[in-house]
Amino acid sequence: MKIVLLGFGNVGRGFVRVFLKHQTYLKKFGDLKIAGIYTPSKGIVFDDSGIDMEKALNCRGKFSECFKSSNIRSIDELIQLSDIMIDVSPTNFQTGEPSCTYIKRALESGIRVITANKGPIALCFRELEKFGPHLRYEATVMSGTPLISYLKENFIPSEIAEIQGILNGTTNFILTRIAQGMSFEEALNEAIDKGIAEKDPSADLEGLDVLFKITILANAVMEGNLHPSDVPVRGIKDIPYPTQGKKWKLIARAFRVGNEVMAEVKPIEIDSSNPFFNVDGTDNAVLVKSGLPGNIFLRGPGAGGETTGYGIFLDLVKILEV
Amino acid sequence: MKIVLLGFGNVGRGFVRVFLKHQTYLKKFGDLKIAGIYTPSKGIVFDDSGIDMEKALNCRGKFSECFKSSNIRSIDELIQLSDIMIDVSPTNFQTGEPSCTYIKRALESGIRVITANKGPIALCFRELEKFGPHLRYEATVMSGTPLISYLKENFIPSEIAEIQGILNGTTNFILTRIAQGMSFEEALNEAIDKGIAEKDPSADLEGLDVLFKITILANAVMEGNLHPSDVPVRGIKDIPYPTQGKKWKLIARAFRVGNEVMAEVKPIEIDSSNPFFNVDGTDNAVLVKSGLPGNIFLRGPGAGGETTGYGIFLDLVKILEV
Repeated sequence: MKIVLLGFGNVGRGFVRVFLKHQTYLKKFGDLKIAGIYTPSKGIVFDDSGIDMEKALNCRGKFSECFKSSNIRSIDELIQLSDIMIDVSPTNFQTGEPSCTYIKRALESGIRVITANKGPIALCFRELEKFGPHLRYEATVMSGTPLISYLKENFIPSEIAEIQGILNGTTNFILTRIAQGMSFEEALNEAIDKGIAEKDPSADLEGLDVLFKITILANAVMEGNLHPSDVPVRGIKDIPYPTQGKKWKLIARAFRVGNEVMAEVKPIEIDSSNPFFNVDGTDNAVLVKSGLPGNIFLRGPGAGGETTGYGIFLDLVKILEV
Repeated sequence: MKIVLLGFGNVGRGFVRVFLKHQTYLKKFGDLKIAGIYTPSKGIVFDDSGIDMEKALNCRGKFSECFKSSNIRSIDELIQLSDIMIDVSPTNFQTGEPSCTYIKRALESGIRVITANKGPIALCFRELEKFGPHLRYEATVMSGTPLISYLKENFIPSEIAEIQGILNGTTNFILTRIAQGMSFEEALNEAIDKGIAEKDPSADLEGLDVLFKITILANAVMEGNLHPSDVPVRGIKDIPYPTQGKKWKLIARAFRVGNEVMAEVKPIEIDSSNPFFNVDGTDNAVLVKSGLPGNIFLRGPGAGGETTGYGIFLDLVKILEV
C-alpha cells in the first residue's frame, strides 16, 4: 500500500510522526509505506519502496537536494502511483482548488483519499460525497478529536436538530486570554509567538475557518446543502471587553428551519450556565441536540500538528479496516 | 432477519419503540422483524412472520393470554430460531447468569448478539470477546450515549492512560438534589417517585452498577483483565452534606499501574474547576485521558428506557451494516 502526501507542513509532518510512532499497531494491515510527497515549494519526492521519512522530516531545502531524482515530473503522475492519497495542503477559501480537482481525479481512479483540507469538503462536497467511505475527512473539524465519524455512525441525520460548537482553537485561545484580562493585541501576539496563530491569522480571526467547519458538519452530518457563502459570519476582531463574570466565545451553529439546514457563525457573550463556558485555551467542543439519544456534549483538543495528524491516522486505519 | 428479545422490561420496550419509530430508516437493511420474546414472568411468544409489537407492548398478562400458542417450549429453542438475539434481561450481579450461557450458546451457533445487560460483559468477557463484532454491548455503559464503539474505534487501547466517569444516572440525580439542599432520603424518594430509581435501589446506591460499568470499560476499551471483585467500591449512602460551593459525585476510574489496568469507584467532593461539576441530573459523562488525541470529555444522557433502547438500536444498525 503506497501513500502519497500532498503537502508537508505542520499537519503533514504531524501525521508522519504519528504514523512512524505507531508502526507496530499498523503492522496488522500489511506493508504500508509513504512513497511520495509533493509540495509547491519543495517539489516532488517518490520512492517505490518507501521514502526515508526521517530524512524527509529533516530536509530543509527542496526534496531534490535531499533525495535522488525520481523521474516523476507531475503531480498527476505522482497521485496515480498511490493507493491512498492524503491531502494536507493549505485550505483555499475561495475555490478549494487545486485540491478539489486532485481529490476527484484520485477517487475516479479508485484511489482512496484522506483530507485534512477544509476547502474541498466545504466547497466541492456534492461532487465528492458520492464516493462514500473512499473519501475520509475526520481531521477537517476538531483536528484530532474524532467527531465526524462519531456523528455519522451514531446519529440519524434527520434526528439532529442542531449542532453548536467552538470549532477554532486559535480564536478560542485569544478569547480565553481576553477573558483573563489581556487586550486583543496582546492575546493575538501571544498566540502568534506560541505558534497557535498563523503569521497571517485573518482566516481564523474573521471566522472563515469556523465557517468552513460548520458548513462541513451541516452537509456531511445533517444532510444539509449549504455553501459557505450562504452562511452569515462574524469574526472576533471587534468584540468589546467581556462583562464581569462572562466570556465571549466564537460560536458556530447549524440548525433546521423547516426542511432546510442553515448555519451561522458569530461571537456570543456567555455566562457560566452555558456548557461552553469552561471550554478554554485551544480546546474545541460541540453540543449536538438530537431527538435520540438526546443532547451530547463533546470536548477535546482543537489544534496542533500532531493532534490533527492523529485525525488523519484514524482515517487511515478505518480505510485499511474496510 | 429474525430478532428475538430476552427480556421485555423498561429497556426492551424502549428498544421496541425506537425500532418501530425508525422503520423507514431500517428499510435499507431488508426484511427485519421481531419474531420472538421471552421473559420469566410473561413466558414465550414467537411468530415466524413477526410479532404484532403494538399488541405485545399492550399485553398486560402472560403472552399466552394475548397471542396464539407457538409450540416453542424452551428458551434455547427460541434463541436457535433467531438471527439476532437481544438480551435486555436484568443484570445478575453475582454470576451474570443465565445470560452468560445464553449469549455464549447463541454466538457459538453463529447468531449475532446485542446485550444491554452488564452482567455477562463484566463477568464473562474473556469467554465472549473472542466472538468480536458478532457481540455488541453499546448500551451497557452510558445507556444511549454512544461511548464504547467510539472509544474502541478511535483510540489505541495502550494510549489510554485513564478513564474517569459519572456512570450512573440514579445516583447522579440524587447527588444533584442533595447539592441543591435536599436530604438523602428526600432525594431518594423523589428519584423513586419519578421512576429514576428502582424500587430496590441498592445496586445503584452501593455503586454496584458503576462497578460493573467501569469493569466493562477497563476490559473492553483499555484491554484490562479485571473482575468486578478486584475493584474497590464505595457507594453514596454515607456521604456527609457537601461543603459550600462543592458537590459530591460518584466517580469511577480505570487507570494503569505499570502494565496493569486497575479501577475504583467512590464518591468524591469536587469544586467548579472539575469537569464533572456541572454534570447534573441523570446525565453521565466520561473524561478519557489519552496520549493522542489528548483529553476527551463526553457528556450525554445516562438513563431512560428509550435512550437505552437507542443504544441497542445503534448496535443493531452496525450489525446489519457489516
